[in-house]
Formats: sequence, structure tokens, C-alpha cells
Amino acid sequence: MNGPFIAIDWGTTNRRAYVIHEGKVIHSERDGAGAAAVSDFPGEAAALRSRLGDLPMLMAGMVGSGIGWRQVRYVPAPASLADLAANVEFIDERTAIIPGISWTRDDLRCDVMRGEEVQLLGAMDAGAVPNKAVLCQPGTHCKWAWLDQGCITRFVTSMTGELLALLRGHSLLAAQIETGSDDGEAFARGVSLGSERDLGAALFSVRADGLLGRLSNAEAASFTSGILIGSDVAVRLLEIGKATVHILADAYLGGLYSAAIAQLGGHARIVSSHDAFVAGICAIQERLK
Amino acid sequence: MNGPFIAIDWGTTNRRAYVIHEGKVIHSERDGAGAAAVSDFPGEAAALRSRLGDLPMLMAGMVGSGIGWRQVRYVPAPASLADLAANVEFIDERTAIIPGISWTRDDLRCDVMRGEEVQLLGAMDAGAVPNKAVLCQPGTHCKWAWLDQGCITRFVTSMTGELLALLRGHSLLAAQIETGSDDGEAFARGVSLGSERDLGAALFSVRADGLLGRLSNAEAASFTSGILIGSDVAVRLLEIGKATVHILADAYLGGLYSAAIAQLGGHARIVSSHDAFVAGICAIQERLK
Repeated sequence: MNGPFIAIDWGTTNRRAYVIHEGKVIHSERDGAGAAAVSDFPGEAAALRSRLGDLPMLMAGMVGSGIGWRQVRYVPAPASLADLAANVEFIDERTAIIPGISWTRDDLRCDVMRGEEVQLLGAMDAGAVPNKAVLCQPGTHCKWAWLDQGCITRFVTSMTGELLALLRGHSLLAAQIETGSDDGEAFARGVSLGSERDLGAALFSVRADGLLGRLSNAEAASFTSGILIGSDVAVRLLEIGKATVHILADAYLGGLYSAAIAQLGGHARIVSSHDAFVAGICAIQERLK
Repeated sequence: MNGPFIAIDWGTTNRRAYVIHEGKVIHSERDGAGAAAVSDFPGEAAALRSRLGDLPMLMAGMVGSGIGWRQVRYVPAPASLADLAANVEFIDERTAIIPGISWTRDDLRCDVMRGEEVQLLGAMDAGAVPNKAVLCQPGTHCKWAWLDQGCITRFVTSMTGELLALLRGHSLLAAQIETGSDDGEAFARGVSLGSERDLGAALFSVRADGLLGRLSNAEAASFTSGILIGSDVAVRLLEIGKATVHILADAYLGGLYSAAIAQLGGHARIVSSHDAFVAGICAIQERLK
């Protein structure tokens, strides 16, 4: 794979495509043609090539899962960009999917990622984080990853964002959680309660607070978000301590996590997830040559 | 209120009606006319009286909530049967609703119950539990209550059952959680993982275990149930220690909680919730005379 190529960050619900040449993004686009919405992957690839150029294509994310184009393996952690490149799966000689990473802690717990690995390792490859660092990618399934010398050595996924969506959409709390969240006083109170690590009880207290007139519906989303993020952050800080958490996120979610980390005594800084993805996929593409 | 009366345990989705005379249940029936399904409460009461007898009627549960007949107050804990009786709200002179109980731990957390208080205090009044006891009512919103000398002194509600229903109905795990739960090996493994008190991450590992072939769909419901119950029980045992937990539940849910409590080093016994309700509501009705 020499010269310009098309890089795709192909998630469950969204897709970002980049035309990259010599490490620079020439063009990028984003749409809602996530893996869950697509059935004809060869047709989608042909359409992308007719729009963006008849170029080699390197893909990451849920496109390599059971709902994607082809189910691609997980490389066990510790894993580097070279390990990912060595396990890329070729649909044809110009069309390839990057593997995910798995981590098995023990008989009780294991974990998987698919797509996040490119960003995480890309951030280190680009020098955006130190050679030994803890990274966090907030979202539906929040990833916390420990990296050392260009390897993801281990990671944990927490269902934080999905739990908020379930509570907002379908739970007893749905009528209370009307608004978006911010990092104000209700969020901070939620972080404190969530940090007690009694999540099921903390969530019921959103209901009780509402019934007893201690929480308005305008505050309930922020309080609930604080409980969920606080409970996630509190467990992680037990391991991380005072080390800096490098957050790959937009300003909104990155801001909520930064606030929770600071409140619970940790340190955080936000890193550009876009640049990290581009650096990571370029480094893998280099190794395919 | 002398002589026979109609007692109703009127929850959100179910309703149990009893005809009670001199402390004995003469007749009982159960149906799906929970408070959420009823709009004409006077009409329902008239229909019950035409079926069961033109008797005084004493009600507990969600019938006294915002979705019920009338919103009845919460009595702050510590609260006894006498406190409940003193705060019963009369619709008319023969038709009354028992108040709920609230507990405010501090600025971060408060809690409410409505309906469970009759069972909890009834179990103690009937001598089914000691004068100082911890009681647990598993369910959609699992209640843990500390009772002392006929008072509920404090309590905690955990959203354990509702979280399982949300995950089963609407989450990424829905396709895996096909079956009912049992207290076998997968449940026990879930209890161990849940007891680490990292609930969001434990739940994601159901997904990862499935993808990596470590967990069959037949085991996933039990594993998930174990995680949720284990996380609830683990926090509570930090306070309860070796004291016996008296579980007011049917054999199925009571069995799951008993197994989790025993696995995590506690002690549990199951108490009849039906008898406890009858004892509690008779004791309140006595005090209304």
C-alpha cells in the first residue's frame, strides 16, 4: 500500500472517511452509514472509491465485527501498532481491516476493543502522550487503557454511556432525565455519590431525591451523569492515583470526565482523538508496505 | 375500623386483596390491576367491595403515590407501625391509605419506600425476625432495611432488578440474555465479579466473554444476574457483616440472594412475605380503631 489511501473509522452508528497522503489528511467526511446501518459493504466501498478516488482502503472499528463486513480477530494484549499491522485482514489486495484487541485479566474478567486501539496507539506514536500513560476514551462504552512503550498492556471497558442511555430511554428515571448534562453543582453531587461505588443504590436516589423535592428535573440528567461517571472514575483512580489521565474525547464529554477526575483527586488532560486516529492508521499503513 | 376488613397490597403492576377477620385471612385474590393500569380508583374500590363484601378498606403501596388514588405523605425514618397508623390518610371514613417512609442519610443521598414498610414492620411485629434485624426485599427495586425495636431506622434501595430488566430489554447484551437465571456456576462467577464493585465494567465483560467464547447465551442471564446481585450484596455486607439477613421473597429470588449472601461470607434466611404483610396491616388496622 504505497501513496495516498482511504482510511475509515467505521463504527456502529457513524463512519468517518479520510483521504490521507504522506501523513496528511487531504479530505475527510463523516456520515451515518455505520456498520449497523449497512448491509452491502462491497457496494459501500465502491461508492467511497468513486467519491474519494480509486485508492487502497484501510478500515478500523465495527466494520471488522459480527455486524460488519467480515469478523476479524482480536489480537491479545499487550499489543502494538506492529502487532495490529501483522494481523490486518485483507478483503482483497487493496482493501483491509485492522484487528481488534482483547485482554484477559483472569477467569472472572476479559475485555475487547475494536476501533479504539488505532486512536490509543496513534496518540502514543504521535508523541501526544508519554511513553507510559493511562488513556481514557469516554463514550457509550468508556475505555481506559494502560500503554507502555508503544503497547496497550491492558484495558477496561465500562458501560457508562450505555447505562445513561438505558436510564434516559426506558427506566423509572426517564421522566426525570429530560435535559442534557453539564458539569455544574448537580453533576458534582452525583460524582461524590457515584464515588461511593454503590451504583444501583445511587441511581435509585435520583428517584427519591425527585420525590422528596431535593432535585429538579432540570438537574436530574446532570446528577445521573455524575453518578455514572463518578462511579467509573472512582474505581479507576484506585489504580491510577495521581498519574495523568489523557482523555481522547470532544470538549463536552472530555470536560465531564476531566471535572470528575479532578473532583476525585486525579489529574486529566484532553488529547485530540482525530489526530490520534490519523497518526495510528498512518503508522499501520506504513507497516503494510 | 372494627371487625372484618379488606386489606390491599396495591403495587405498580399487581394487586393483592385480602379479606381479614380477627387476624386471619378469610379470602385472598391477586390480579394485574396495579396502580399503573387503573384510572378509576373509586370504581375499583366499589368493584372490590361488591365482590369481597361491603367492608372497611385499608390500602398500602403505589396506590398512595403520584400514579395512584391519592399522593400520601412519607413518614421520615425512624418509623414504627404506630407512626404509620397515625399518618394513615382517609379517602372517606371507611377507606384509607397507609403512608410510605422516607430516609435522609445526608445531602448526597435519601431514599423512599411505599408498600414495603408494611411487610418489614409486620415481620418484626409477628416475631418472624428478632427485635434488631436486617431485612432484604429483593425485586425491581431491592430494599435493605435496618429494624430496631419495632422501628425501621434506615434503609437503602438498589435498582438491581430494574437494571437487569433494562439490560435484558434494551441493551447491547439483550441478544445474549435469552433465558432466566439460576444460581449455578455462571451466577456464582457473576457474584464474584460483581463483588468487585465495578458494575459498569463488570457488565461490559458479559459482552466480552460472549465475543471471546467464554460464555454461552444459556449462561449469560445467570452471569449478568450474578453481577448485579453480587454488587448489591457486596456493598451491603460491608455494613451487615456476619449478622443474619432476613429475606422477604419467594423461593426463586430469595434463593438467588441467599446464594449470593452465602458466597460472599454472610448469612441469610427466608421469611414469608405474605404472612408479614398480613401481620403488618392487621397491626395498623388495630391502631385505627
